[in-house]
This record gives sequence, structure tokens and C-alpha cells, in this order.
Amino acid sequence: MRNFITIEGCEGVGKTYQTRLLKQYCLDKGLDVVFTREPGGSDIAEQIRRIILDADNSDMDDLCEAFLYAASRIQHLKDIVKPALSQGKTVICDRYVDSSYVYQGIGRGLGLDKIVRLNEIAVGEYMPEFTVFLDLSPDNAFRRKGGADQNDRMEAVGYAFHRKVYEGYKLLIQQEPSRFEVIDASGTKEQTQAKLREALIRRGVLK
Amino acid sequence: MRNFITIEGCEGVGKTYQTRLLKQYCLDKGLDVVFTREPGGSDIAEQIRRIILDADNSDMDDLCEAFLYAASRIQHLKDIVKPALSQGKTVICDRYVDSSYVYQGIGRGLGLDKIVRLNEIAVGEYMPEFTVFLDLSPDNAFRRKGGADQNDRMEAVGYAFHRKVYEGYKLLIQQEPSRFEVIDASGTKEQTQAKLREALIRRGVLK
Repeated sequence: MRNFITIEGCEGVGKTYQTRLLKQYCLDKGLDVVFTREPGGSDIAEQIRRIILDADNSDMDDLCEAFLYAASRIQHLKDIVKPALSQGKTVICDRYVDSSYVYQGIGRGLGLDKIVRLNEIAVGEYMPEFTVFLDLSPDNAFRRKGGADQNDRMEAVGYAFHRKVYEGYKLLIQQEPSRFEVIDASGTKEQTQAKLREALIRRGVLK
Repeated sequence: MRNFITIEGCEGVGKTYQTRLLKQYCLDKGLDVVFTREPGGSDIAEQIRRIILDADNSDMDDLCEAFLYAASRIQHLKDIVKPALSQGKTVICDRYVDSSYVYQGIGRGLGLDKIVRLNEIAVGEYMPEFTVFLDLSPDNAFRRKGGADQNDRMEAVGYAFHRKVYEGYKLLIQQEPSRFEVIDASGTKEQTQAKLREALIRRGVLK
């Protein structure tokens, strides 16, 4: 879908920080770009997300969770993404179907094929024009001097899981090389931001 | 799935009443049959259902709703149906995938094929051994002396919708005749109950 861009990456890659810098850049340049992330200001999608994240719901079936993420995605599309695109705006979404593919399909072991089919039904033609992958291996992410919070979050889930997720992304990129814009995120934050902007300018999203 | 039976029918057919009589019959006979309906005592499934039924969520996307029903179904399977079946019990479930096929796929117009694919991913091999369809046309249901509440509920959604749902069930039965046990529900409640029991005895579910 033209003008619909998604950003993906593993935990600890600095995705939130990079997106914030990018948003500021667009504001400064007066570019009409909508930055969003699921459930992102959609009330119903937020209600669904609350069930997923509720610590009391720890015995949730993994497949049930995948369906809830997809349901939240559909509502976020309806409430936020589709209206913006139909007004001719560019939409940059922090995480989208690829996160489900790698976290649920590969990380949780539900099967990539199943999660792809599920999300095909959910999003239909609303696949991103292209997807930025901020590339930092879990080894580098663990090693990087990050906030304690970031390291805690990564270590809680475990290195093996993050390794699977990272390799999952690499598999997706191999399967659909033209959809992905791979950005080396192993340098400084400023270097990564520069590469990110350069890619978006080259793709005609930014000026 | 052996020992897994579902009951379907349009609004106003007296499904709840018939199921209650059947449950009493099983209790009287000392038969170990689990009667359930989604979300049916599954806490997470109930939370999902609450979002679907919340009147404030009237701008929910129809497809989002279909995903939420499927998510609730998956959790109900995990919490209620699978444990009972694995203990060798018979499970009779009031409404299941066929309700999604006809209400969402056909009634709401999302497309039967899409809702079938969605539910295939959700339930996998957990398809009913057979499905009882309590057969009463919407014309008969409207005409029947029912509680005011029942008529209100039917009229609120509209005759045309119920007609589509009824014809949807007929289509499913035509597609999978061996899975359906069609029970004429146009007679008295007692006649319908007698036919229902006879069918379940013939199928080896009741004694």
C-alpha cells in the first residue's frame, strides 16, 4: 500500500528513539507524516491490548494472543491508518505484521505460515509499501551500553528467544528482499538516524 | 473430534430451552456430559466477549469482531473443551464455528470463505464430530408465540438478516450433509426434544 511504511527491529535496537528523532525531523521540515504504533490512539484496539498485557492473563493460549494482536491491528487500521492514507498522508507505523510473524510465528513457535495466513486475512491489501529493518544482532544489543531497563527487559525473556526473533527477521528479509530496507544499527544513534533518513529520502518518503 | 458435539440454530428456535432440557435428561440418567457455550466459564474468553458486547464499541470493525470471536473460541477450547475431551467426557457446545460462518461470514457479509479460513486456523482439528441443527425458518420463528423478549431481539436485527443466516445454515448443510443432524423444530417443544434425544441416542451420545 503506497505511502504506508513500517519500522521493525529487535528489542534494544533503539527503535523508539530513532522514530522519535524522525518524527521531530518531519515536524521541523513541515512534512505531513503520521507516526503511529498499534494500538495507537484507537480506543477499541487499546481495550484489546489491555487484555493481552494483563499480567493476570498469563494462561492465555498463544494462538488466542495472536488472534487478539490481529484484531487490534484491524481496528487500528480502520481508526488510524486507513483514514490517514485516504487523506493522502504518509503513515509510518512502529511494528506491524512482521512483528507478529517473528514474535508469535517464530519466537513462540506457532509457525510462520499460520501467522502469515492469519494476518493476510486481517490486513488484506494493507501491506506496507516497504519496511525498515533496524539491524542489530542480539549479541550487539546485549553488549551495547543501554539503560538498565532495556537490559532487564531483554534478559527477562532470554537471549535464546531474541536470537530466534532476529533470525526470523533475517528469514523474512531473505524471502522478500525488495520489501525491506535494512539499516545497519550497530553504530552510534546519530549514524543510524542518518542512514534511516537517507533511506527514506531515497525512497521518496522524506525530503 | 470424537465426542465433541455442537448445537446450532437461528434466533427464536428455542435452542437454549432445548439444551436445558437435554442437560436435565443427562443429569437424571447420570451421563457425564459437559454442556458449555462460549465463553462459558473461561475468564479470558469472557473478557474478550465483554469487548464485543460493549455497546460503546459500536464502531468496531466487523472483521475485528470476527477475530475476537475466534480468539474467545480458542481460549474456551483450551480452558473447557480440550480438558473435558481429554478426560473422555462428551462435550455439547451451544454454538461454535458454524455460528461465525453464518452470522459473520454470510449475515454480515464478510464472506464465508474468509471466516472458514480464519476458524480453521483457530480450531485446527477441533471440529465437531457432528452438529445438530435445530431447523425453524425465520417465518415460523416470527409467527411462533414466543416471549416478547425473543421477538424484540429478532425484530431489532431485522427479518432480512435472519433470513440470510437461515439460508447460510442451509448452505453449510448442503456442503457437509454428513456432519449435520437436522432436527425439525417446527412442532411443540416436547416434540423437538424427543427428536433431539432420538438423534443423540442414534449417534451413540446418549443412552
